[in-house]
Amino acid sequence: MTPFKAPIDDILFSLAHVAGADTVEGWDHETAADILDHFGAFAEGVIAPLNAIGDAQGARLENGCVRMPDGFKDAYKHLAEDGWQGLTVPEAYGGMELDPLVAAGVSEIFSGSNHAMQMVCNLVPGAVTTLLRFGTDAQKARWIPKLASGEALSTMALTEPQAGSDLSVIRTKAIRDGEIWRLDGEKIFISGGDQDMSDDILHMVLARTSDDGLRGLSLFLCAKQSGAKVTRIEEKLGLHASPTCHMVFDNAEAELIGEEGQGLKAMFTVMNHARLDVALQGVAHATQAARIARAYASERKQGRAADGAPAVLADHADVARMLDEQDILAIGARAMVHLTFVELEKGCDPALAEFLTSMCKVFGSEAGPRAADLGIQIMGGYGYLTEYGMAQIWRDSRICSIYEGTNGIQAKGLATRGLKPGGGADAFEDFLMRLSDQTAGTRQFETWSTLKQDLRASADPSASARAFFEGSAALLQDAIWRRIRDVADHHTDTGHIKRLADRVLGAQ
Amino acid sequence: MTPFKAPIDDILFSLAHVAGADTVEGWDHETAADILDHFGAFAEGVIAPLNAIGDAQGARLENGCVRMPDGFKDAYKHLAEDGWQGLTVPEAYGGMELDPLVAAGVSEIFSGSNHAMQMVCNLVPGAVTTLLRFGTDAQKARWIPKLASGEALSTMALTEPQAGSDLSVIRTKAIRDGEIWRLDGEKIFISGGDQDMSDDILHMVLARTSDDGLRGLSLFLCAKQSGAKVTRIEEKLGLHASPTCHMVFDNAEAELIGEEGQGLKAMFTVMNHARLDVALQGVAHATQAARIARAYASERKQGRAADGAPAVLADHADVARMLDEQDILAIGARAMVHLTFVELEKGCDPALAEFLTSMCKVFGSEAGPRAADLGIQIMGGYGYLTEYGMAQIWRDSRICSIYEGTNGIQAKGLATRGLKPGGGADAFEDFLMRLSDQTAGTRQFETWSTLKQDLRASADPSASARAFFEGSAALLQDAIWRRIRDVADHHTDTGHIKRLADRVLGAQ
Repeated sequence: MTPFKAPIDDILFSLAHVAGADTVEGWDHETAADILDHFGAFAEGVIAPLNAIGDAQGARLENGCVRMPDGFKDAYKHLAEDGWQGLTVPEAYGGMELDPLVAAGVSEIFSGSNHAMQMVCNLVPGAVTTLLRFGTDAQKARWIPKLASGEALSTMALTEPQAGSDLSVIRTKAIRDGEIWRLDGEKIFISGGDQDMSDDILHMVLARTSDDGLRGLSLFLCAKQSGAKVTRIEEKLGLHASPTCHMVFDNAEAELIGEEGQGLKAMFTVMNHARLDVALQGVAHATQAARIARAYASERKQGRAADGAPAVLADHADVARMLDEQDILAIGARAMVHLTFVELEKGCDPALAEFLTSMCKVFGSEAGPRAADLGIQIMGGYGYLTEYGMAQIWRDSRICSIYEGTNGIQAKGLATRGLKPGGGADAFEDFLMRLSDQTAGTRQFETWSTLKQDLRASADPSASARAFFEGSAALLQDAIWRRIRDVADHHTDTGHIKRLADRVLGAQ
Repeated sequence: MTPFKAPIDDILFSLAHVAGADTVEGWDHETAADILDHFGAFAEGVIAPLNAIGDAQGARLENGCVRMPDGFKDAYKHLAEDGWQGLTVPEAYGGMELDPLVAAGVSEIFSGSNHAMQMVCNLVPGAVTTLLRFGTDAQKARWIPKLASGEALSTMALTEPQAGSDLSVIRTKAIRDGEIWRLDGEKIFISGGDQDMSDDILHMVLARTSDDGLRGLSLFLCAKQSGAKVTRIEEKLGLHASPTCHMVFDNAEAELIGEEGQGLKAMFTVMNHARLDVALQGVAHATQAARIARAYASERKQGRAADGAPAVLADHADVARMLDEQDILAIGARAMVHLTFVELEKGCDPALAEFLTSMCKVFGSEAGPRAADLGIQIMGGYGYLTEYGMAQIWRDSRICSIYEGTNGIQAKGLATRGLKPGGGADAFEDFLMRLSDQTAGTRQFETWSTLKQDLRASADPSASARAFFEGSAALLQDAIWRRIRDVADHHTDTGHIKRLADRVLGAQ
């Protein structure tokens, strides 16, 4: 198996030169490079070697407790001791207080080296943001230092057997009991609902304080020892080392965070971070799939070139096409997410942030399995075997289109909220213009504008939501690749990047 | 898990009314319906229940022998006793001598109920054809009755560690030893290289009788007890119950079949059958994925309709779009394969047969994973779980784009051999016209014609081979769906089929 290598140069190129991180106040290229180097070495040496082990062993439920695969506990200890869990946490709470741009790079590397472990660890930044925004001083003081130090990990407990994409039918009840609350109900699909890496776990639980649909939902903090029990872990297609838990809350002690009935608003703070993180998981998978396939195709002898000389797989035009498509997916998706992070840092308008975040979630999450699918095809029979790791990437990455709001729900948001007055679509158009003034002149821009008008006039825009996403993403990718071509000289392999840009832009 | 149901009505509709089996001499609709009913009941009752078991247990190598998962041996015994292995074998050799059209239906049902078991059993028809065409009377008499009765199964042993898509570098040596030959070498990726279902195994082995590249290859018959050994079975993404064997031939006794140096020609007889069978595997997977997803989406409560009434998943426009796309893939791919079988039965020109066979291989093999991917998406988190079976369809079906000649190789054939004078592309154009006289007028037909001319003038058409396949497939699907719309009244659900046709044809 091709060992994991952190794509540090590609990440820095994308952040600094494509997404324009250097225009963000406080961005320090040297520091970013330093942090990514350190984390990259740790991911390559400690985390990545556990990826295949985790897949083979899986997490296990034993006497109500989840046991992570061999090596995970030690690796997590190391991760926590080095302070990585507190990367973006304010210094006042024991964190490093680094910016989300560097954190995006770290998160991508983490996911690329071991998505399952990253999932269990990386709901923490969203939890911290939620605590900072909605928590009381006591709640902040109790939880943020533990999350920053790694003493606690966190979960999001939303889904129930009858309530997946539709949270209005959540049944878990919260009943006030003096100073505290008591939770009763079942939650499913809780990633890291239990594990043996951190001493404590902070469950962020969405529960019902009244019968008033979505307005009856409030958000609660629930510690590991609160009476929440894991009753099952799911058998899944992939991410075997990430325990997907069925949990029962039976009179579990909890604290309300934020206001009663405002649970969804608070939860979306966690979710927004998570959606961009999912997009980065896709980027990470696409990148690894591209690397493994290119390494294989550059070595594997196959047939002959036009001049009769012995060839390798990568010399064949159809294979070269697939290898390039993998790179284009990885680089294009990464740029999209980084641009969104930069806009968020600059405090862009919330509607644009929402629009871009949904686009990143869909595009990034689909880039992963698509690149892995190409990787399997490039490697042929070997791609179908377990030992080359491509099949695991395909399986693990497949969840990204589903969790944190399915891609269908994201696309629906673009085509409905996004197109309303003050929705993100208009700001998105301005954003495209800022990125490249040539995109507006293209035929695909005209097609998109027409579709936008049709959808605004439509009674049910959700029927064409997918088409609207695809049109929007194609435009954004077009603008992104124009930008990439302009800044290609900053890439460590200028010729390759320019060739990719020509392939994308020439294909119109 | 939604239990397997054989899509008998859909198969008969496709064969008789779309593909025009009723214009083939000897076609008997009643007999076909009868056979499919019988096999369908057997597949539903006996074979399908072993599919998930096979996936969970996998085949195991124990002391050099392969043990199939629980229940496989008994099911195979039943299959053989009922005569299914001899379905198309001439009566003179103990078979049922039924036509390949009915056999296509049986094969699809077999693959849909248990692809892994089907793979191990279904290289037999290709082996029988090869024996009939190239075997001596003694070879026919020795092997065909055993294959028809199920006493023997057969394999294709082509690939070697250094020789995958490029067979010219095969190293396995065949040396004459009096009346017989001796084989020495390694073969990999041999499906069913050993198993404990049949008493004997007929290995069809491609080996080198001289150093003259592809012309130095000859085909050999090698019995189970010849000295061929399984040294490893592969860990794979899917098809766990199909033992993919690493085999060593160490002075193994073999018989030459056909002429020395004509091994590739003889092998392609097996391969041609196998390619259409792979396309049917894709059809079978797409069909099951569509069934499971529609059953789930019709039951699962989710959100509300526009009028505020409680809705199910299938009521949501984006989900309906995905469900329809699954059906369109399954029905469209099935029609493509059935049309090809009908052309073959009518004795169409070999170049057209070759062209259509390659198209079916690519289109069918991609329909399976695409439909399963949509299925996972439709079912959300449940699609990602093992228990609903969708994930297994996705994993199992993924091999189809790779084996029996990768899709890249098939597409290259279309764009190179297919476009040469006398190649299949011109006959394909006539074929399209016969299918629907409206296809020629479309814009996509003009685009395709231009691409065809460009490719004929191109030094390396393989760079655009994928685009040429896609254009050709889109045209054929267009013609097919026009035909389907015309004959929709023969379908058991006329309204649904018409709506699907409108969705495909309206989208142009």
